[in-house]
Amino acid sequence: MVASLSETLNTIKQYRQSLPPENPPFPVPSASEAAAWIDHTLLKPQATADDIRKLCAEARQVGFASVCVNPVWVPLVARELAGAASKVCTVIGFPLGATFPTVKAFETETAIQAGATEIDMVIDVGALKSDDYQAVWQDIAGVVQVAHEHGALVKVIIETALLTRDEKIAACLLSKGAGADFVKTSTGFSTGGATVEDIALMRRVVGPEMGVKASGGVRTWNDMQAMIRAGATRIGASAGMNIIEEAQHGS
Amino acid sequence: MVASLSETLNTIKQYRQSLPPENPPFPVPSASEAAAWIDHTLLKPQATADDIRKLCAEARQVGFASVCVNPVWVPLVARELAGAASKVCTVIGFPLGATFPTVKAFETETAIQAGATEIDMVIDVGALKSDDYQAVWQDIAGVVQVAHEHGALVKVIIETALLTRDEKIAACLLSKGAGADFVKTSTGFSTGGATVEDIALMRRVVGPEMGVKASGGVRTWNDMQAMIRAGATRIGASAGMNIIEEAQHGS
Repeated sequence: MVASLSETLNTIKQYRQSLPPENPPFPVPSASEAAAWIDHTLLKPQATADDIRKLCAEARQVGFASVCVNPVWVPLVARELAGAASKVCTVIGFPLGATFPTVKAFETETAIQAGATEIDMVIDVGALKSDDYQAVWQDIAGVVQVAHEHGALVKVIIETALLTRDEKIAACLLSKGAGADFVKTSTGFSTGGATVEDIALMRRVVGPEMGVKASGGVRTWNDMQAMIRAGATRIGASAGMNIIEEAQHGS
Repeated sequence: MVASLSETLNTIKQYRQSLPPENPPFPVPSASEAAAWIDHTLLKPQATADDIRKLCAEARQVGFASVCVNPVWVPLVARELAGAASKVCTVIGFPLGATFPTVKAFETETAIQAGATEIDMVIDVGALKSDDYQAVWQDIAGVVQVAHEHGALVKVIIETALLTRDEKIAACLLSKGAGADFVKTSTGFSTGGATVEDIALMRRVVGPEMGVKASGGVRTWNDMQAMIRAGATRIGASAGMNIIEEAQHGS
């Protein structure tokens, strides 16, 4: 899956001219499988230890894919989820993506040492918009290197709401080329969240092997199904309990 | 100015019962001095290298106190401001304040090595709201230690919009006790910005020696004067050029 920067720059040029074919709708999971597709997420800075414990108890109860929290809560979540199937997910360079690559790598290392096994990093949006693709690439590659050394997954948040179509294509291909495991739409802290159109574009660009995570504004079972049909393989949501309730009993 | 944690906890209890007296209005600077009170700020993640260069040119032109940018832009700002009076200011743990203390300290060290001399850090709001005042203190003290070793200033962003009155008092006293140079209202990325009431409260709590920075929503010369009358000694604003224009020529 990893490609060189120059190969990736060529693919970016090519895909801006002509994308691979559209995908037919992807199958959606059954209601009983839905929880395993969701990163159960709480990233508000004012969340308390009690809020985080509740999130973990809910994850144990329904079997969410992961609990996704800010780094400072990783040790607590790792304790609360000990022995559970749900993974410990955290966010890096979040939500602006505008810190030093070395800081993102160090934050990743620290989070993994504290128990995280899934790493959702934010790209350097400003570098992307300044056409400094090498900087975007190196920033992602630095986090991927640390994470993969420890067997952790990397999801790259490209913050679709701030990007043009050409920038979305570039961000996806840079993420794929630099070895990330997923591309992810949104932080939930910008001007917009996941759209079906963006998920379809991202899936088309990264191809079938890579993960695509829809996050930001996914609040219902209908929303979730639409994202999965378009190509999402993971959903980030703070409304996970509602979504599961709807999936199992109707809205 | 530095106090022990236990002294600080006592002062928090005492001030929640009874605050020091209100201050009379503070004098405002003349129009020609106004720029030297302003941190000329651009923290949007989508800012480009050209946007940052423009910000620096404006700072040179009118003599802003500093240029305040995300960490990734510090090297560029340090180059653009070489020999200018304006300082290089950056933000740490921004805007959620929810990463590890060791990461904030490392980010501070990295930013200072890259040329920053003013460090605006965000407190761990979640720890404050979980009543873990020791964690809040240690997080601030870790950044202060690194910054002061290198002669850099520390401003502590308490994110007033998310705090109760008692939490604002605690956050100010913990910042002061841990040795910070300023308390600062807001990141500009939360549910609200600086208010005159909060600035007056913060000044009352920290006393006369410490800096107080009003940031978030300060867009006019009238706003700025109101904040300074209430006790602010620094203004963070993305509208600095407009404010100076108004100060010098009327709105």
